[in-house]
Amino acid sequence: MAEDVIYMPCAEAERFARAAFFKAGVPEKEAQLCAKILIAADRRGVSSHGIGRITGHYLDRIKNGIQQAVTNVEFVRKAGATCVIDGHHGMGMVIADAAMRHAMKCAREHGIGIAVVRNSTHFGIAGYYTELAAANDMIGICGTNARPAVAPTFSTENMLGTNPLAWAMPSDDPFPFSFDGATCVAPQGKIELYERLGKSSIPSGWVIGEDGEYRTDVSRINADIPLHKAALVPVGGVGEERGGHKGYGMAMIVELMSCALQQGTFLSALSHPTPEGKPGLPKTGHFFIAIDINFFTTPAEFRRTVSAVNAELRAARKAPGCDRIYTPGEKAYLRSLEIEKTGIGFSAAHRKMMHRVNREYDLGFELPFPEE
Amino acid sequence: MAEDVIYMPCAEAERFARAAFFKAGVPEKEAQLCAKILIAADRRGVSSHGIGRITGHYLDRIKNGIQQAVTNVEFVRKAGATCVIDGHHGMGMVIADAAMRHAMKCAREHGIGIAVVRNSTHFGIAGYYTELAAANDMIGICGTNARPAVAPTFSTENMLGTNPLAWAMPSDDPFPFSFDGATCVAPQGKIELYERLGKSSIPSGWVIGEDGEYRTDVSRINADIPLHKAALVPVGGVGEERGGHKGYGMAMIVELMSCALQQGTFLSALSHPTPEGKPGLPKTGHFFIAIDINFFTTPAEFRRTVSAVNAELRAARKAPGCDRIYTPGEKAYLRSLEIEKTGIGFSAAHRKMMHRVNREYDLGFELPFPEE
Repeated sequence: MAEDVIYMPCAEAERFARAAFFKAGVPEKEAQLCAKILIAADRRGVSSHGIGRITGHYLDRIKNGIQQAVTNVEFVRKAGATCVIDGHHGMGMVIADAAMRHAMKCAREHGIGIAVVRNSTHFGIAGYYTELAAANDMIGICGTNARPAVAPTFSTENMLGTNPLAWAMPSDDPFPFSFDGATCVAPQGKIELYERLGKSSIPSGWVIGEDGEYRTDVSRINADIPLHKAALVPVGGVGEERGGHKGYGMAMIVELMSCALQQGTFLSALSHPTPEGKPGLPKTGHFFIAIDINFFTTPAEFRRTVSAVNAELRAARKAPGCDRIYTPGEKAYLRSLEIEKTGIGFSAAHRKMMHRVNREYDLGFELPFPEE
Repeated sequence: MAEDVIYMPCAEAERFARAAFFKAGVPEKEAQLCAKILIAADRRGVSSHGIGRITGHYLDRIKNGIQQAVTNVEFVRKAGATCVIDGHHGMGMVIADAAMRHAMKCAREHGIGIAVVRNSTHFGIAGYYTELAAANDMIGICGTNARPAVAPTFSTENMLGTNPLAWAMPSDDPFPFSFDGATCVAPQGKIELYERLGKSSIPSGWVIGEDGEYRTDVSRINADIPLHKAALVPVGGVGEERGGHKGYGMAMIVELMSCALQQGTFLSALSHPTPEGKPGLPKTGHFFIAIDINFFTTPAEFRRTVSAVNAELRAARKAPGCDRIYTPGEKAYLRSLEIEKTGIGFSAAHRKMMHRVNREYDLGFELPFPEE
């Protein structure tokens, strides 16, 4: 899919994001972390979760007072290999990073650790945190709930979040095993991408309308979801015949792991409108599990097994018309090699947004594209 | 789907299974446990994993010397909240029960615990173990690898097992939240059921042939899978458009969690043929995680949240033609109420098998159906 894009080096985009977060009130070190995690998405080609969201998901929320620039990570409970964190609506990346690091600390001591979080905000890509564990000879697992978008099996109403589950493990490949997927067929960001590219329709099977039929009309879908007129479809599709109840079940697991242990918020309450119908405080919940491989076997042996499984799968018989079999994390790695060379592509809409941020926060950046 | 079935009370079937395991050499208490777990599948209507498999998956393997009737659960490593178990090809149910109980013991002490297993055999339904945790105010998670049946995305070859993932949590409903699903669209047992019912075809989308097209011809599929001529499709379907890479990713997570920490067996090596091409020792791997809710909040508060989420989902807008929305575990619970009344239904093939076992192991049972 070709798009009118102009490229900017990743490191430069990260400096920009860091400066913007800082000027918005995020303390310097935390601004650096938030920028790093935000751009980690762009670096692997997950542009739906990258710098394109810096205004809508972060800066504008801070400006509107529904997200705190200064984060108070409160450890409500710490016991054994567990903890409960209240994020007090601070920066999701700061909260999530602290949570995964605490789970990893517990894992180092007990072999496995878990941190659960309430009252957080959008934390960027889930895979960042699980890969942090993988880089430290651990298995990392995490998930988060989100605003209602996905219909349960036999329903057409947006009830569950896109509720990604991420799971990473170290390997001997040049990249870790890393699975990071929404529990619906396609996340909203992908539909936004189709819209931005001027496509008139998305593939059938992603979105269900009120009438129970698949909808493919790009332009109104994302607006119709919060109005309960459309909903994303769980992995496996509508109904049970092709396993839609399994995607629904996985979405529920992530929803419950993100609210029940931490006495947090769930389902419709996550749409966080104020009594006046304006957006209110996000109350996102997350969970993080780390498993220290050293308690079981040597990290070298573990990595060897993971890469042997990868290699055997890649050598499987290809389906007609397919010339390559990938393992989880591989495509993102290949994209990251490319993006490291080209830089991050900015569409016209994103270029405009960058200029607005540059001006609004008085960053004084020389952006590599003119104001149009 | 109507089938010529004759019913037998659940408790009676459980006594039968217990006697058969005992006569096959399984020690008395372990025979009791194996029978309980086997019939737990029938009790919830998962007949694919119940007494219908007592010969093929257990008794015949013991007779053929590829599974040990007397189980040696060896704790290879115990450290912190973790353990590694070698099952030495004993009874999978005995091994898995010991593993989940150890994970629960660790969770009681540390808040979370994990047990990983190698060299096990078929352990019945995964949901039994996770619901054991749920019945003890814990979250239970488990998974197992299995013989190669599922094709990775962009492949047509059976590489991964059906690799179920199970996750259970206590609730205030009359049944726990309980998800227990193969990571493929439909497990082999469901195809066997279609075959037994004399159906000529399965729904499109479950199985892929060598040519990359869906196959629906019931009768040859299960025979063709080990011959690499057919493969099950991961949840989400063939290719990536409808999220097939997510089902594939979940199958890989379960595969790796079932082999990498425990230095166990994976993929093609799980098809366990001897050099002469006969079935060899199964070397199945499992993993079990337990999370003690008391470390986070009160079990009462936790259960209240789970049931509130369930209730909100059930009250969602129904899709046209659908009159009810279920939550994970609900359908199995409703079936169990029915089956408790009717007993377990035995097809002609299963009745014949029961008579064979009755004679072969000299059980002297008065079966509620004649020998045909």
